[in-house]
Amino acid sequence: MKTTISNDVLSAAVAAVRSQRPLVHNITNYVVMNNSANALLALGASPVMAHWKDEMEEMTAIAGALVINIGTLDREWIEGMKAAGVAASRRGTPIVLDPVGAGATSQRTDTAVELIELCRPSIIRGNGSEIMTVASAWSKHLGSSEQEGTESAKSKGVDSSASSTDAVEAAKRLARESGAVVVISGETDYITDGSVVHTVEGGDPIMTSVTGMGCTATALTGAFAAVCKDPMTAAVAAMAVMSAAGEKAAAQASGNGSMQMHFLDELYNLTEL
Amino acid sequence: MKTTISNDVLSAAVAAVRSQRPLVHNITNYVVMNNSANALLALGASPVMAHWKDEMEEMTAIAGALVINIGTLDREWIEGMKAAGVAASRRGTPIVLDPVGAGATSQRTDTAVELIELCRPSIIRGNGSEIMTVASAWSKHLGSSEQEGTESAKSKGVDSSASSTDAVEAAKRLARESGAVVVISGETDYITDGSVVHTVEGGDPIMTSVTGMGCTATALTGAFAAVCKDPMTAAVAAMAVMSAAGEKAAAQASGNGSMQMHFLDELYNLTEL
Amino acid sequence: MKTTISNDVLSAAVAAVRSQRPLVHNITNYVVMNNSANALLALGASPVMAHWKDEMEEMTAIAGALVINIGTLDREWIEGMKAAGVAASRRGTPIVLDPVGAGATSQRTDTAVELIELCRPSIIRGNGSEIMTVASAWSKHLGSSEQEGTESAKSKGVDSSASSTDAVEAAKRLARESGAVVVISGETDYITDGSVVHTVEGGDPIMTSVTGMGCTATALTGAFAAVCKDPMTAAVAAMAVMSAAGEKAAAQASGNGSMQMHFLDELYNLTEL
Repeated sequence: MKTTISNDVLSAAVAAVRSQRPLVHNITNYVVMNNSANALLALGASPVMAHWKDEMEEMTAIAGALVINIGTLDREWIEGMKAAGVAASRRGTPIVLDPVGAGATSQRTDTAVELIELCRPSIIRGNGSEIMTVASAWSKHLGSSEQEGTESAKSKGVDSSASSTDAVEAAKRLARESGAVVVISGETDYITDGSVVHTVEGGDPIMTSVTGMGCTATALTGAFAAVCKDPMTAAVAAMAVMSAAGEKAAAQASGNGSMQMHFLDELYNLTEL
Repeated sequence: MKTTISNDVLSAAVAAVRSQRPLVHNITNYVVMNNSANALLALGASPVMAHWKDEMEEMTAIAGALVINIGTLDREWIEGMKAAGVAASRRGTPIVLDPVGAGATSQRTDTAVELIELCRPSIIRGNGSEIMTVASAWSKHLGSSEQEGTESAKSKGVDSSASSTDAVEAAKRLARESGAVVVISGETDYITDGSVVHTVEGGDPIMTSVTGMGCTATALTGAFAAVCKDPMTAAVAAMAVMSAAGEKAAAQASGNGSMQMHFLDELYNLTEL
Repeated sequence: MKTTISNDVLSAAVAAVRSQRPLVHNITNYVVMNNSANALLALGASPVMAHWKDEMEEMTAIAGALVINIGTLDREWIEGMKAAGVAASRRGTPIVLDPVGAGATSQRTDTAVELIELCRPSIIRGNGSEIMTVASAWSKHLGSSEQEGTESAKSKGVDSSASSTDAVEAAKRLARESGAVVVISGETDYITDGSVVHTVEGGDPIMTSVTGMGCTATALTGAFAAVCKDPMTAAVAAMAVMSAAGEKAAAQASGNGSMQMHFLDELYNLTEL
C-alpha cells in the first residue's frame, strides 16, 4: 500500500477508531449488510443498521457518523435515507454517501442528487463511472455550465468502466460544487476536496471478485469520519486500510470465498499502516 | 460430476460466461443475496441486485438475464418482480424463476403461477416438492385435465420430500404446459424441456446444510441463460458447475461454514468440466 | 463451557434437534439472515425466513417455533411480526423474542412491549442493556410499581453496557411479569424464569466481534424451543451450544472472518455437551 498521506497520520486514525469505538449508523444494501457490519467490527467500530424513517431522528442522535448506500433502493428506503440524512446534517454528524449504480438507472442517479441536495455529505465514494454520472447530474442540477462537454459515463450495473483522468476531473468538480470530499475507488484510489488529489495504491485485483468491497470501503469511511476532524484524512485512511488488508488477504486467498474471510481477519489484526 | 450433455459443450458455456461477463439482474431473497452475488462473480458474471418497481424498466434494459427468486416475499417485492418480468419478457431477455417454498404457503404458490403467466420464464428451477406444487397449480390454472390424479407434494418449508419419479413427471408436464425448461435439484438433478430429460449427478450431501445452495444454482442458471442460446444447455451447465464445485469443496470442508467458502473458491477456479 | 443444567440433559436436547429437524420460522434482521439460517442448519434444524403479513397464518401452521428479531425494523415488518406472533400464540407454538437495540430508539422499545403484549413469547433473549430497557418498559406498561427506582439502561446501539447484577434483577422481574423465560447474553449468560437463575459460562471475547452472534443464539433458541417442553432447558441448551462451539472456534480463528466460519463448522460437528 502506498499513499500520499503519511503512514503516521493514518495509523493514528486507525488507533482513534480502535480506542473510541464510534457508533456508525448504516443505511445500506441487503447484499453487503453482514460484511459491512463485520468490517466495522474488525476495525474496532460499532455498527448499527437501521432504515425505518420513524426511528431515524433517535438513531442519528446516538451515532458518530451516518453511511448512506443506495445499492438496493426502493421508495420506503429512500424516505429513511432522507430522514436520516436531514437529521444527521442538522446535528453536524458526518455523512458518507455511496451512490451505488448511479447511471445504471435514472432513479439511482436522481436519488444521489436528491441526497446531496438534502444532506450535503462530507464524503462521496464510488467507482469511476458512478462518480462521473453523479458529477454530471449534480452540475446539471445546479445549472452549472461546467458539465458542458463532459459525457456521463454509461454505467453497466455496478461496474466501473470510466477512464481515470476523466473520472478524476469529474471528482474534483463534484467536490468543488458539493463541498464533499470525493473518492474514486479503483486500481489507484483518488481522494479529492476539489483542489488537492491524494492517491492510494495497492490492494489486489481479486478484490473486484468479492461482492461489496466498495460498500465496505464506504462503511469504513464512516468509521474514520466519526473520529477524524478532516474528511480528507478519513477518506484516505479508509482506502489505505482497504488496500493494506486487501493485499495481505490476497496473498492467502484461493478464491473469492476465502478472500472475503481473510480480508476481515487482516482488517481485524491491522494496527498500523 | 456426471451429466448427459458433453463436457465440451458445458466447458464452452463456462468459457462464454467468463469472457462475456453477462450482467445478471437478480430479484432474490435476503438470505442468499451475498452468496448469490459472490457465486456469480466467481463464475465470471456481473451481478446486480435491484427490486424497486420504478427502476425495473431501466435495469432490465441493461441486463443479459433476469433471475426471480421468491424466497422472502411481500407485496412490494411481488410488484417489483412482476414489473421486471414483464419488461424482460418484452425484450426477450431470458428469465429464470425459482419458486422457493411453493406449497409451504398459498401466497408462494400463487405468486409462482402469476409470474409464469405474466413473464413466461425460460427456466424454472426448484426442488422436487416445489416443482410438483407448481406443476399442479399451473395445470389447475390452465384448466388442464392432466393434473387429475396428481397429488400436490406437501411442502415442509423449503425442504424437498417428493419422490423423484413423480417429481420428474411433474417437471415434464410443467415444461410442456409452460414452455419453460424445468430443473429439479436433488441428489440427481433432472433438467427437462418436456420431452428430453437430462441428468446431472454429483455434488455432496453437505450442500444441503449450506443455506441457499439452490438459490445459488438458480443465480448461476441466469448467467448461463445470458450466454447460451439453448436454455437446456444453460440449465445443465449451471447444475454441472454446482456439482463439480460442490464435490471439490466438500473434500476440503470441515462443516457447513467452510463448505460455503470452499464452494466459492472452487467455482472461482473452475475453468472446465 | 460450564452450566448449571446437567450436560446429559443438554446433550439430549441437541440430539432431539438433530433427529426431529424442527422447522424454525424466523422473522429476523437483514444483517444476520444468512448466518442464522446456516447456524440452524448446522444444529440440524430446518430454517425458513418469511415476514409477509399475508403468509404468516400458513407459515406458522407448519413451523415448530417462531423467532422474532427486531434488528432492522420498519412498519411493514412490524405488521408481519404481529401477525405471525398472534397466529403462533393461538396455536401454542413457542415464540422467541430478540428485542435488538431496545433502548436505542423508542420505536424498538415500544415494538418489544407490543409484541410481548400481543403474543406472550416463551423466551426473551437480549444483552444486559436491552433486557433492562424492556423490563422497565414492560413494568411501566403494566403500571407495575416494581419499576420504581430501576433505571433504564441507556442503550448505545446494539451494544451492552449494563452491570450484570442490575440486569439479572431486571431479567427476573421481566420473567415474573411476562411469563417468559428471560436470557441475558454476556461473558456469563443468565437464564431465568423469575425465580431460578441458571448460568452458562464459556465462549470467547472474539464472539463480540462477529456480527449477529446474539441473533444466532436467539435463532438456535428457537430450534431448542421447538423440541424441548421446558423453555428453561431450551434456553440453556442454546446458550450452551453457543459457548461450546464458540470456544472451539476461537481456538482456531485468526480474526472475526475465520471466527464466523469456524463457529458454523464447530456447531455442525457438535454432538454432545
